Amino acid sequence: MPQLTVALDMMGGDFGPPVTVPAAAQALSLLPDLHLLIFGSRAALSPWLERCHLTAHPRLRVHYCTQQVTNEHKAGYALRHLADSSMRQALDALARGDAQACVSGGNTGALMALAVRVVHTLPGVDRPALITRLPQADGGYALLLDVGANVCCDAGQLVQFALMGDSVARHVLSQPRPRVALLNVGAEANKGNDAVRQAARRLKAHSGLHFTGYVEGDDLFAGKADVIVCDGFVGNVALKTSEGVARLLLGAGKKRGFWRKLLAFWVKRRLSHLNPDQYNGASLIGLRASVVKSHGSAGSPAFLNAILQAIAETEHALPARIAHRFDTAPQDSHAR
Amino acid sequence: MPQLTVALDMMGGDFGPPVTVPAAAQALSLLPDLHLLIFGSRAALSPWLERCHLTAHPRLRVHYCTQQVTNEHKAGYALRHLADSSMRQALDALARGDAQACVSGGNTGALMALAVRVVHTLPGVDRPALITRLPQADGGYALLLDVGANVCCDAGQLVQFALMGDSVARHVLSQPRPRVALLNVGAEANKGNDAVRQAARRLKAHSGLHFTGYVEGDDLFAGKADVIVCDGFVGNVALKTSEGVARLLLGAGKKRGFWRKLLAFWVKRRLSHLNPDQYNGASLIGLRASVVKSHGSAGSPAFLNAILQAIAETEHALPARIAHRFDTAPQDSHAR
Repeated sequence: MPQLTVALDMMGGDFGPPVTVPAAAQALSLLPDLHLLIFGSRAALSPWLERCHLTAHPRLRVHYCTQQVTNEHKAGYALRHLADSSMRQALDALARGDAQACVSGGNTGALMALAVRVVHTLPGVDRPALITRLPQADGGYALLLDVGANVCCDAGQLVQFALMGDSVARHVLSQPRPRVALLNVGAEANKGNDAVRQAARRLKAHSGLHFTGYVEGDDLFAGKADVIVCDGFVGNVALKTSEGVARLLLGAGKKRGFWRKLLAFWVKRRLSHLNPDQYNGASLIGLRASVVKSHGSAGSPAFLNAILQAIAETEHALPARIAHRFDTAPQDSHAR
Repeated sequence: MPQLTVALDMMGGDFGPPVTVPAAAQALSLLPDLHLLIFGSRAALSPWLERCHLTAHPRLRVHYCTQQVTNEHKAGYALRHLADSSMRQALDALARGDAQACVSGGNTGALMALAVRVVHTLPGVDRPALITRLPQADGGYALLLDVGANVCCDAGQLVQFALMGDSVARHVLSQPRPRVALLNVGAEANKGNDAVRQAARRLKAHSGLHFTGYVEGDDLFAGKADVIVCDGFVGNVALKTSEGVARLLLGAGKKRGFWRKLLAFWVKRRLSHLNPDQYNGASLIGLRASVVKSHGSAGSPAFLNAILQAIAETEHALPARIAHRFDTAPQDSHAR
């Protein structure tokens, strides 16, 4: 494998360097061929680089930045005024080809806007989507997209998400003929809003996809589909709701008592993939290079997972696969 | 208490009379003052009325219908062509004043359309909303609306939902000053779609509400708000997703082994209010009389719960309380 370099925004997420630096150190120690290019403020990074013995690591380059994108920043502000932020600099490195993938735990809206501006979408893709894995009752995984990059989506975008999700399922999850479904409020054809119903008509007519119709919220974990498509508002609420239920259950373990602790342990195992520390890493797909969004509340093991996911996508040449899909696959017969 | 009569659509839901007749029998036996007016096909009802010894019950009147609304029927079709359906006839009885509340487990879209046509919305209410209770980590409840009656909502509707939810929390849940929140994809002011952001501005300016801002999907069970407002698409997906997670967990109990069964029992107890058989009964509020939507997959205990909920709302005079709220409360300063 040729040299692989990942660019890391060290300042994103709720914790910054105390989480991201130990994760970077572990990635370097796990993968002897990995190079990292990290971005962050000198004051915040330096003590943690020292503590993790990374001040003179041969496969680590540090780029100090003077700005930082916070959760309060609007995407437009980040675009115009935060050119020396760690997020922007990491994406610039990706766009220049200094790195092959990028990971950030920062503000999703800003990451989306900066990535579109700097890295660019693939031909035929209007907007990138955030995609994540959901555990299924049968032990496998389904892909859910969009989980938060686009709060409003028209039918054409949902069709593009379906195509992108299909590519990820084929190449990253090795599913030869993924079942693609739309998330809706009922299984019958007349249910849902205009965008979903129109997307369903177009997906049904699409010869390159195995479209299986609608699924509902309670089907997300039922093994009924391999790729589940929705707009980013709905997907974000669905994903976070499932975390909320998991937390409601795990909360029981905080109270005293052997049984409650045992229960919490079991639930934790069963729900491990709804735990941000485990499923961490929603990928921003549809871009010309791999950008992975780490969960804001991720700890070091979770940020490490996000790095590993970025590496896996790069090794699967995911952006090129999606580009090829949009370039050569039978096209949507109702395309604009 | 004056005589209370509830109209029941016996044909709705996935099972019909095998579920609804035993529930009706139990309601009559639990509440000696309750009268029921039931609607359904003779062929489907008769054997179950006999089996449950209801053929000559003094507090039960049976009205046989020749039509039925199924899940496949569009709302428009039900409006135009199913005048002798059990759902329509039950709502007609409510509108005539023959009953004070109505319960149906049938097609949500059709129930919504027929109820608006026949029972009418309260002055100031554009569209009814489906409201349901969610268990909270602290042991209490929050109200979530809309959970499926309106797949698209503008800011004005979200503001109306907030006012209606506030009334339910005050009068049915006895909360003196309910905390009202909007469901969104982030806690910051710049997050979300236009309808949600505009609704937030209007709710903030509304002197009659204790608006606390945005909550996210993982806050639905966290005890952060008493009333959580969203459009019906998002609310439906969130509610069903939480059921899906519960089912994912409960499913593990089906496998053999004493420990798994024991733990499944604990999970079941903890999640009892995410179980359709327990939380059953989403109310269609904003109408001139109480209409309760029973879950399609509800069993007899769940359908009984929906009947009890309809009775409770009637005893709380909920429609009159909401009417009073819209009539006298400080009005939305940005109202259309």
